[in-house]
Amino acid sequence: MPVATTKFLLAENEIPTQWYNIAPDLPGPPSPPLHPGTHQPIGPDDLAPLFPMGLILQEVSQDRWIDIPEEILEIYRLWRPSPLQRAHRLEKALGTPAHIYYKYEGVSPAGSHKPNTAIAQAYYNKAEGVTRIATETGAGQWGSAMAMACKFFDLECSVYMVKISYNQKPYRRAFMETFGADVTASPSNQTNAGRGILEQDPDSSGSLGIAISEAVEDAATHDDTRYSLGSVLNHVLTHQTIVGLESKKQMAMAGEYPDVVIGCVGGGSNMAGLAFPFMADKLGGDKPDVRLMAVEPTACPTLTKGQYVYDFGDTAGMAPLVKMHTLGHTFVPAGIHAGGLRYHGDAPLLCQLHHEGLIEAVAYPQNPVFEAAVTFAAAEGIVPAPESAHAVKAAVDEAVRAKEAGKETVILFGLSGHGYFDMTAYDEYLAGNLDDYAHSDELIAEALKNVPEIASA
Amino acid sequence: MPVATTKFLLAENEIPTQWYNIAPDLPGPPSPPLHPGTHQPIGPDDLAPLFPMGLILQEVSQDRWIDIPEEILEIYRLWRPSPLQRAHRLEKALGTPAHIYYKYEGVSPAGSHKPNTAIAQAYYNKAEGVTRIATETGAGQWGSAMAMACKFFDLECSVYMVKISYNQKPYRRAFMETFGADVTASPSNQTNAGRGILEQDPDSSGSLGIAISEAVEDAATHDDTRYSLGSVLNHVLTHQTIVGLESKKQMAMAGEYPDVVIGCVGGGSNMAGLAFPFMADKLGGDKPDVRLMAVEPTACPTLTKGQYVYDFGDTAGMAPLVKMHTLGHTFVPAGIHAGGLRYHGDAPLLCQLHHEGLIEAVAYPQNPVFEAAVTFAAAEGIVPAPESAHAVKAAVDEAVRAKEAGKETVILFGLSGHGYFDMTAYDEYLAGNLDDYAHSDELIAEALKNVPEIASA
Repeated sequence: MPVATTKFLLAENEIPTQWYNIAPDLPGPPSPPLHPGTHQPIGPDDLAPLFPMGLILQEVSQDRWIDIPEEILEIYRLWRPSPLQRAHRLEKALGTPAHIYYKYEGVSPAGSHKPNTAIAQAYYNKAEGVTRIATETGAGQWGSAMAMACKFFDLECSVYMVKISYNQKPYRRAFMETFGADVTASPSNQTNAGRGILEQDPDSSGSLGIAISEAVEDAATHDDTRYSLGSVLNHVLTHQTIVGLESKKQMAMAGEYPDVVIGCVGGGSNMAGLAFPFMADKLGGDKPDVRLMAVEPTACPTLTKGQYVYDFGDTAGMAPLVKMHTLGHTFVPAGIHAGGLRYHGDAPLLCQLHHEGLIEAVAYPQNPVFEAAVTFAAAEGIVPAPESAHAVKAAVDEAVRAKEAGKETVILFGLSGHGYFDMTAYDEYLAGNLDDYAHSDELIAEALKNVPEIASA
Repeated sequence: MPVATTKFLLAENEIPTQWYNIAPDLPGPPSPPLHPGTHQPIGPDDLAPLFPMGLILQEVSQDRWIDIPEEILEIYRLWRPSPLQRAHRLEKALGTPAHIYYKYEGVSPAGSHKPNTAIAQAYYNKAEGVTRIATETGAGQWGSAMAMACKFFDLECSVYMVKISYNQKPYRRAFMETFGADVTASPSNQTNAGRGILEQDPDSSGSLGIAISEAVEDAATHDDTRYSLGSVLNHVLTHQTIVGLESKKQMAMAGEYPDVVIGCVGGGSNMAGLAFPFMADKLGGDKPDVRLMAVEPTACPTLTKGQYVYDFGDTAGMAPLVKMHTLGHTFVPAGIHAGGLRYHGDAPLLCQLHHEGLIEAVAYPQNPVFEAAVTFAAAEGIVPAPESAHAVKAAVDEAVRAKEAGKETVILFGLSGHGYFDMTAYDEYLAGNLDDYAHSDELIAEALKNVPEIASA
């Protein structure tokens, strides 16, 4: 009997050498970002204090393909191409006729997909003479990736880490410090934004919105420093398309094309990175029926319950306004373990496609997500990151529906990272201590009242 | 300019389908294990209460090649073949003409090479109707691998975890529990051995020797239960040769043959697994000059300072006597972070080859080991496990010697696992809090007085 293939591995020279930029393929023109004060559209020059021009030009680019510099590919080759695996053992455990594939980004040294853009951002900053990066991190995935990327390109790295995570995740802090990063608990005394918060609430445990404000201020007030963001922005999504582009080649090796592509969504770069290359086939008419599914927590249901309007990118209202599905920039999600999914909005590109009905969205509470993750680990070995476990749950549900319908549905989901740094979450799940956190519609409606009225939207 | 290859990846159907058993190729007959009470050689029947006959027959086999059952290969394919990588960026950082290759076993779901034998041991137990496994773990690498393996084969798994690790490494405990294992802090009240220790010292923080005694007693007193050991034994070393067999194919892909093969040694299965397939070439005369190097901590210098005599495998003197390099079965190594290297002896097969002058050994203190690990991470991204970092240090030293000599030395070392669960060790290193722990010759001489006098040796 021939042995079924488990892993579809590309050769090193098959790593895509261009990123895919979905902007020129959008069904309609994107809504421009607006200045937080004037509410007028902002251009490249407005972003120059925060980002190098190389990234700003990608942010506004209408080129479908963007060459990946060899210096970036050299580092990608440390772990890329990442494996695409057929989950034979999970299929068997579920008794489903579905074919389940997962693209595993946990093989990167930082343990997630985040280095795909961190490496690129460090490169373009270095190329323009920047010597120091300021950024924020919540649970630590992004900070870990940026710390590593800065070390590779000999840049200083200052990470504002949400204080509650700083205290709860010392392993993540130590990881960043091993790569030479300077990690500060946020809110801190190092910025006006931080000091302002601490004056009001000396015991503040911090938030991603506050940490963003600190990192942005740090970059804006130091000539040698630029700011770096791990999701949401167009150029970040573009860098992550390396994931989907590899996956398309690997699905072709497997001789299949997915009926549905599933990714978890926090800011949106993971889901977009996997899905946009398949979306290109849908928009282009080659694969009009391929379904693209975004998965989010019920604790932060931006796509499923948010409004598609202009809102601030940060809590303080200092960042540009972008049109997105938002729960309101003052919305504070419950303390779920999938820290990377706790953002009040989503990437504008992804939101536009969801608004057009081209991307589905589904939300799950914590406990069924962890249940699916444990089922996955028991079959495939890998313990998923809590964020990635949301995609696992949606894939399992699709596979169960396929079983009920007796269909060989081809499912591809993104396993964006491993859970080695998140074992306390599994501990609490196994002990039955997790709250499901489904926010009431009333609470969300209240938060949405803080969304600014924008005439030009 | 052609791009230099970083990763040498085998196709899935190139996974070796046989393990290599070095026993028939040894330069002399092995010294048999002895009964701890009678000091007489023991045979397969004596081991039957502890191990399934499938493993016992491998333990005493003189067959050079042992077929790997398809059920085991199916699981190996979840992460195998593991990558062999050329450390271009480390070479550049060191400015060395040496070619440095590393075989990376951290891609396994449990994060180390340990599943290579855990899967095999679970399979052979399952095949003979065993329903429950008892084992011990120190830092948690082995327990993690065995918990996963038992879940895959639907076996119950009871892990006695050294109490100090149980308290210090809750992530490891949670990992095992995620796979359904029952984890008990050792010494415990569940065994006579544990109760005896607790009566003498209620606050005992435990040791690997005590945990072994508890697991062995558990297996010996439950009909449905067998014992499982993660290193030292012949069959464990044989299972790990999958690592070296893959590496030989991958070095051939790279068009090179190593001048030196380097592995860290605790019980010896990691080093043997990588090195024995190359040792076969040395013993067979094809590659008489290949050097095999074992690396150990100065805190537990078995090969570099131990005596080659018969000694007990466990602290209590209940396990068989084996001829090995030992520091005395009562020797308690200092609390280094490389918990997997804290064993008072070494695998008899490895010791015999070291005694014959066929394997070199070197010992390093903690701080230079972590210094090398941080250098490696800065170049290659991966944060090594503290155990594996010993091999990194030896490889770096070889590369520096090659630079001084102006030689293109080809170095292959085993990166047996990642350090994601060991970040507190890096934290303490970066804070300058690590002790180097070089035991005095007097202390070791004192411990060696407890080695029994064996007439038949």
